[in-house]
Amino acid sequence: MEKTDMELKQEEEEGAPAPSVERVFDGVRVPAWREQVTVRALVVSLGLSVMLSVIVMKLNLTTGIIPSLNVASGLLGFFFVKVWTKALEQAGVLRVPFTRQENTVIQTCVVAAYGLAFSGGYGNYLFGMSSKIAGQATEADDSQNIKDPKLGWMIAFMFVVSFVGLFSLVPLRKIMIIDYKLIYPSGTATAYLINGFHTPQGENLAKKQVRTLGKFFSFSFLWGFFQWFYKSGDDCGFEAFPTLGLKAYENKFNFDFSAMYVGVGMICPHIVNASILIGAILSWGIMWPLINNQKGNWYSADLAPNSLHGLQGYRVFIAVSIILGDGLYNFLKVLTKTVQTFVSDSQKIRLSTLPVSDEVQMAKQPIVSYDDDRRIEVFLKDQIPKWVAIGGYIIVSLVSIITLPHIFPPLKWYFILVAYAVAPVLAFCNAYGCGLTDWNMASTYGKLAIFVFGAWAGAHHGGVLAGLASCGVMMSIVSTASDLMQDFKTGYLTLSSPRSMFVSQVIGTSMGCVVAPCVFWLFYKAFDDIGVPGSQYPAPYAIIYRNMAILGVDGFSALPKHCLTLCYIFFALAILINLARDLSPKKVGQCIPIPMAMAIPFYIGAAFAIDMFIGTVILFVWQKMDRAKAAAFGPAVASGLICGDGIWSLPQAVLALAQVKPPICMKFLSRKMNDRVDAFINSAS
Amino acid sequence: MEKTDMELKQEEEEGAPAPSVERVFDGVRVPAWREQVTVRALVVSLGLSVMLSVIVMKLNLTTGIIPSLNVASGLLGFFFVKVWTKALEQAGVLRVPFTRQENTVIQTCVVAAYGLAFSGGYGNYLFGMSSKIAGQATEADDSQNIKDPKLGWMIAFMFVVSFVGLFSLVPLRKIMIIDYKLIYPSGTATAYLINGFHTPQGENLAKKQVRTLGKFFSFSFLWGFFQWFYKSGDDCGFEAFPTLGLKAYENKFNFDFSAMYVGVGMICPHIVNASILIGAILSWGIMWPLINNQKGNWYSADLAPNSLHGLQGYRVFIAVSIILGDGLYNFLKVLTKTVQTFVSDSQKIRLSTLPVSDEVQMAKQPIVSYDDDRRIEVFLKDQIPKWVAIGGYIIVSLVSIITLPHIFPPLKWYFILVAYAVAPVLAFCNAYGCGLTDWNMASTYGKLAIFVFGAWAGAHHGGVLAGLASCGVMMSIVSTASDLMQDFKTGYLTLSSPRSMFVSQVIGTSMGCVVAPCVFWLFYKAFDDIGVPGSQYPAPYAIIYRNMAILGVDGFSALPKHCLTLCYIFFALAILINLARDLSPKKVGQCIPIPMAMAIPFYIGAAFAIDMFIGTVILFVWQKMDRAKAAAFGPAVASGLICGDGIWSLPQAVLALAQVKPPICMKFLSRKMNDRVDAFINSAS
Repeated sequence: MEKTDMELKQEEEEGAPAPSVERVFDGVRVPAWREQVTVRALVVSLGLSVMLSVIVMKLNLTTGIIPSLNVASGLLGFFFVKVWTKALEQAGVLRVPFTRQENTVIQTCVVAAYGLAFSGGYGNYLFGMSSKIAGQATEADDSQNIKDPKLGWMIAFMFVVSFVGLFSLVPLRKIMIIDYKLIYPSGTATAYLINGFHTPQGENLAKKQVRTLGKFFSFSFLWGFFQWFYKSGDDCGFEAFPTLGLKAYENKFNFDFSAMYVGVGMICPHIVNASILIGAILSWGIMWPLINNQKGNWYSADLAPNSLHGLQGYRVFIAVSIILGDGLYNFLKVLTKTVQTFVSDSQKIRLSTLPVSDEVQMAKQPIVSYDDDRRIEVFLKDQIPKWVAIGGYIIVSLVSIITLPHIFPPLKWYFILVAYAVAPVLAFCNAYGCGLTDWNMASTYGKLAIFVFGAWAGAHHGGVLAGLASCGVMMSIVSTASDLMQDFKTGYLTLSSPRSMFVSQVIGTSMGCVVAPCVFWLFYKAFDDIGVPGSQYPAPYAIIYRNMAILGVDGFSALPKHCLTLCYIFFALAILINLARDLSPKKVGQCIPIPMAMAIPFYIGAAFAIDMFIGTVILFVWQKMDRAKAAAFGPAVASGLICGDGIWSLPQAVLALAQVKPPICMKFLSRKMNDRVDAFINSAS
Repeated sequence: MEKTDMELKQEEEEGAPAPSVERVFDGVRVPAWREQVTVRALVVSLGLSVMLSVIVMKLNLTTGIIPSLNVASGLLGFFFVKVWTKALEQAGVLRVPFTRQENTVIQTCVVAAYGLAFSGGYGNYLFGMSSKIAGQATEADDSQNIKDPKLGWMIAFMFVVSFVGLFSLVPLRKIMIIDYKLIYPSGTATAYLINGFHTPQGENLAKKQVRTLGKFFSFSFLWGFFQWFYKSGDDCGFEAFPTLGLKAYENKFNFDFSAMYVGVGMICPHIVNASILIGAILSWGIMWPLINNQKGNWYSADLAPNSLHGLQGYRVFIAVSIILGDGLYNFLKVLTKTVQTFVSDSQKIRLSTLPVSDEVQMAKQPIVSYDDDRRIEVFLKDQIPKWVAIGGYIIVSLVSIITLPHIFPPLKWYFILVAYAVAPVLAFCNAYGCGLTDWNMASTYGKLAIFVFGAWAGAHHGGVLAGLASCGVMMSIVSTASDLMQDFKTGYLTLSSPRSMFVSQVIGTSMGCVVAPCVFWLFYKAFDDIGVPGSQYPAPYAIIYRNMAILGVDGFSALPKHCLTLCYIFFALAILINLARDLSPKKVGQCIPIPMAMAIPFYIGAAFAIDMFIGTVILFVWQKMDRAKAAAFGPAVASGLICGDGIWSLPQAVLALAQVKPPICMKFLSRKMNDRVDAFINSAS
């Protein structure tokens, strides 16, 4: 099976196959999984977790929009451990060298920990339970529907809900990473970064790739820095650049100069990017303007722009329907396949005594590249037994079912049981979508839970509180599951053991369960006006989530006209399109858009779709011009773009914490409005 | 002397010398100069002259800022004659193929013609004489100082003043083009474009260069188009982008994303760009802010920001002093050298009977490149005898001296005599500065004339009218001279005969003398509110020029405090720096900045200095990375950038004529101001 050096050289010269990363690491031993989880890694992880949790909490309470900090944690982990090991090396006491697997462990642990600062709902559902927020809403301002934050119950709640997600998808990791070959752009970018750092010296191509990555990293970082200066307020800066005109911008069609999403577009397959763009055009280009014309007819014209009773309701619920339709289809497909494999596996076991290596052999069959070969081998070596996953899931669920009703009386035990019964489906949907597009849609599934369980409990039985609490249950599972899968992808690409990934995720989650509530408690106690609109920390999503819970309690009838019908139609369409993809000949099927990817811009807007499409066009042109070079350097360029922008969010958050605001607003006004504003400025000065 | 094919190939492979353009044209015959000036070329020129004159007149009367349309005329000339010849070819009646020399002739003719629409002063001095403008000024509103436009005297005036400039610098063309190797960025870019169009098929490098040029041309054009959308008003769009912060922008330090000036920076030598940047820092970074601190002390604080009694006075007059100092120094240097050469030439003539080929031999000595060799040969073949130049200058001057006092009674014959005596010095200064930086400073010299002759005549003897008229005399000479030199450069690079350049310039000027006044007359008669502030055609510079004339009549005492002293100091400095450049060892001298280049940003602002410096940095890095490639493709990239932006000004002007305004204003506000504007917008909507 091994190729001779001669053959390899020839291949390299012809430039036909993509250059191998793992060959570069051939001389480097892959440490056993226990050696990957070191004490120094966990210490560094704890420090970084606190730091990133503060940043995320701040963002939670100001805008509510949290960028992915995966890359930042990978890079910072590398930096701190490198400093540490250098110091030990100088002192002559270094025993174990710093490996890329250890780096991945840190990254995983930190992501797990700071992830809870988001999925713990301190900016949305959890804070939405408080009396401060309830006082601002119109209904359900009674003690049954209110629970004020206290450090004790928050930590307990975190421990109870945060581990379920870890067990839910573990058995599916081979399907998602190896069989589906999902991309997980952030995870892939992080892996490229980590591999780049640890590349043994003297390798020409790897060095060149790292240099390319470094160049685009610097560009992307500096570009983010430059952009910052011009964003002193809302609707300011490059994000508000009406690249395609003001009319298009009103419908959220603009290229917003985000280096990150151009990079994401370069990593994602062309069909994903095209699907997203088609979805964006269908929704923001056609459907929303048409529905908007029915304003005052289908729904009241007096509503706030983001009210779920209005246009925003169509956006959220149609997106949710498609995501559910696609997710359900894929879940069922995977289920049948899993059952089939299980059946044939158990038949084989009777024939063979080595089922694991057999599985390795099976997975290897369609693969030719050396990298894939090597990675699959390592990925499948350290198994996590199925009984651990299933057993863990059942035990943690039971604890949760028993404990949670004590914390939130309106949340009945059978609600939680139902939630845990359907959660794996939703977790799968999210992990699948995230693997395609890098969007973690956990909050969408959380919103679904708000509606379902809020309606079930009813307004008079604390339905609002029940809805918000079940949102927490659902969001934690779904979010943790996709984080874990993202980390499995990073682990896969860095030859880290899935077992060490899993262990570090468990440790990181434990850290987060303590760190996140404490950080929130700090903010809550330190700032009196937290949650007050217009203040420094308005926590905008807290009131939105509470309002959604109120809508949920009022039931489907509160949805705007025809919304439910449209939801049914799109749910069915999602399934039909998937069927068409699978049943038509491969060449045709490949060109049919993916519903899951189409749904994301429905709710979020079209700008990122345009960014990603530009990324895909750049890669496409590059591939046409020089396929070998594009294959070798495309991922490096994309990772550099993603990482640079990602790391920039760190100093940006520090600046925000230090109350340093951008000095300039780059504003876009229509000519008419500009004339009026000029007159105003002249009269004012 | 000829190299063998083998040697050439070797050179090409080593990539050491810059690739030759002229070798590509080796098989193409250079037509005799009479064949270059064809009837079809003149017909196309006339059509284009009318079109571009309308555009320039419109710009004259709206903003007063005229971009260089050299490139546009070259390209359009190519397009129309190409269509013409294709049609004839199809009909089978084409006798003479379209050559690049013919293309250059069209370009020259059109530039000469539309140039008069600017230098004729329809937007400034000439219109400033009218009673419409005089009514808006504070003083000198008497019949002695007023002359209303009439078609008759305007055409006569144009014919009388416009030809002098053509003769003034003709004898110096060898010095400026071959000895000084001045760049003339627009002329060079146009030549590259024309050479690119006419490159014989099958030449690989030339093809690649043309493709590169085309790529950057498209980019620059589209970029200009994109920028247009965001400039709906003053202080809007990319020109107002505070790239280095708002504070720096207030002092005119910003990168304004002008592809044209980045291209100009890539064509200009590094020392020119560095000099401009040093000048910008010295003036806008240090001197103007310091002088501004003396507001209310050195000059009245109540003045309008652009009043010549205030800060603007320092800017204009110090810049003029440096330009005059540098120009005088170089003029004297050239004069002594010319006299020396003349003396040694006349000695040689006694020895040899072939002075021309001898001159060719002399000029050839320090040159190695084949391109230079070939171009110098052609450039020096068709001589324009010195007696034609000197005789022409004297005859036209005499006509002018006799005629002009009849048109403008306050303009005495001895004023004009003095003007024509010093004009060649100023024309040289301008042609020299323009060759270095592409800035035509004709209006600066015109302003100088306003002051000198206005003061000389005195307020009670129609000094204002005399000042404005002498401005016209001076501006015409200076502007035409530099246009001609620019065209000589284009001709040099396209192997066009200087004689055909000169003839086509004479024909073009004649066209312009009729076309420009007629076009102005059309506007003047068609729009009643022409020259009224705030109207569609405010002609802003008309009132500024009239005010300058009034200031000139009031004399030096009207200048702000210490301004005259500073002017003397900088005049002396300009000469000293030049002496230092020439007397110090070559290595040191090369690094001393050029005063002429330093002076330009003094008046115009620092933005273009930053653009050009970015261009020079890009080229510098490129040269460090790959010198051969930079030499081969640098000029193509630069020309593409310059031409794309240049051509874009054509549709832009058409849009302006059609009253199509940009839809969006990209505005930059400080955070504080933005908050107030947001409050205003919210209250308004």
